[in-house]
Amino acid sequence: MSRIAYVNGAYVPLAGAAVGIEDRGFQFADGVYEGIAVRKGRLIDLEPHLQRLWRSMGELDMDAPMAVGPMRLVLSEVVRQNRIADGFLYVQVTRGEARRDHAFPAFSRPSLIVTCRRFDYDAVFTRAATGVKAKSVPDIRWGRCDIKSISLLPNVLAKQAARSEGAFEAVLIDTDGNVTEGSSTNVWMVDGTNTLITRATSDNILPGITRAVLADLAAEHQVRVDTRPFSLEEAYQARELFLTSTTSGVMPIVALDGRTIASGRPGPLAGRLLAAYKTHMDSCP
Amino acid sequence: MSRIAYVNGAYVPLAGAAVGIEDRGFQFADGVYEGIAVRKGRLIDLEPHLQRLWRSMGELDMDAPMAVGPMRLVLSEVVRQNRIADGFLYVQVTRGEARRDHAFPAFSRPSLIVTCRRFDYDAVFTRAATGVKAKSVPDIRWGRCDIKSISLLPNVLAKQAARSEGAFEAVLIDTDGNVTEGSSTNVWMVDGTNTLITRATSDNILPGITRAVLADLAAEHQVRVDTRPFSLEEAYQARELFLTSTTSGVMPIVALDGRTIASGRPGPLAGRLLAAYKTHMDSCP
Repeated sequence: MSRIAYVNGAYVPLAGAAVGIEDRGFQFADGVYEGIAVRKGRLIDLEPHLQRLWRSMGELDMDAPMAVGPMRLVLSEVVRQNRIADGFLYVQVTRGEARRDHAFPAFSRPSLIVTCRRFDYDAVFTRAATGVKAKSVPDIRWGRCDIKSISLLPNVLAKQAARSEGAFEAVLIDTDGNVTEGSSTNVWMVDGTNTLITRATSDNILPGITRAVLADLAAEHQVRVDTRPFSLEEAYQARELFLTSTTSGVMPIVALDGRTIASGRPGPLAGRLLAAYKTHMDSCP
Repeated sequence: MSRIAYVNGAYVPLAGAAVGIEDRGFQFADGVYEGIAVRKGRLIDLEPHLQRLWRSMGELDMDAPMAVGPMRLVLSEVVRQNRIADGFLYVQVTRGEARRDHAFPAFSRPSLIVTCRRFDYDAVFTRAATGVKAKSVPDIRWGRCDIKSISLLPNVLAKQAARSEGAFEAVLIDTDGNVTEGSSTNVWMVDGTNTLITRATSDNILPGITRAVLADLAAEHQVRVDTRPFSLEEAYQARELFLTSTTSGVMPIVALDGRTIASGRPGPLAGRLLAAYKTHMDSCP
């Protein structure tokens, strides 16, 4: 079965789906996106993803390509046409095509691209049982990482730096020596008092949807959460260290920069939170 | 006459010229570019532009889409097919199409896009006789602005912040209060001793081609050049302040943040350097 994409009003085969070379997404990274988990045919945490997409567009003074109601229908239709049970839905909005000039064009019609592909969450959950390696990389991204923009070249380079050494993810370190987030994930640690720690979203951190869900789940499970910076040294010494994201769920880091984290095996809190997150996925409407 | 673009091996009408929606330039800003002046049908400073393009690709571990010899032929052919005398040639290389994943794909064929449009340098030189307004904007770009990448969203937002207040360019200010560069230009000042000052390219500054030409021309004209940071306050008090870029030539800033620079008229050094730059353009092979 060939995959189907939605591109600016039409459902078309992904092979051959195209945008104009003067689309500002292609020439200026002038666009935003969301990645949404599809589990048993349902879009997980759709509403917060849509809210964040609208916020991103708003921060860039970008018009929405359509109202939120029609957008929901398009996303569902892309899932349906691709016959996806478990998958990853990708939505990208750009400022559209215009003669090349840095400043916003007087008029352009925003571009909307939606794709969906199969994704094996069960394989991810299985991997979480053994955990992954990570590598610290200096955080050299721009100052508005709270906007989920496609200006992702620094993230690409960080991820590649990790992967080229056999690590699953790059843990980004700011100039103060503190962990910010992963190249496409949020990072959490558990300290010696079993407090769960992650950066505040005000610290140039993406307000991760899975991050927000996890904070709620932690509260439900009477886990103390502290949103504060923590250093790379603290991370090395953590009782537990893990990542969250749409495609990683709750993924334990068992080694960072070649140093074993705690026992080198996923910790109990990550396990409990992953179980709660799986239940959350299964209970999404 | 319809404009012609070169896109991955073919010369095609610009209207309709397209790239795949999974091109990494569109989804990750994983690409680099050059903008080259065309004056009287000749590509100005072609070799340094090509050298910088190859350096940018190298810094991103990106394969060249073709060797430099064929690239020269493609660029000339795009100028010829568009029958451009005075124009702006745009070259973009991306890592090409691949299934979406931050890390580099195991294999992808780099995309090469070339466009050319008319551009009126004489109008720019006329404008330089009165100068332009500029606005200071915090520099929130990433840490590798020496790479001429398409990860330009911060530059877009800065330029827009300037244009929305009627200013021609944004002058970017780092966290130390010093000028870095413009959103698409390099920035220079002349101090009270008639020394020409601009940032060193090691300071996360794009190694501008016009910047390098101007440094050479200044030396030829026995003008002292000091490559060092200068503050926004120094810029306000400058004897002269100006921008350089491929499409701006040497463009005096006569007001910054509403403050008049010196007499509010372009200064003599900018005028001499612009004259020398015009001669340079006319003498390019």
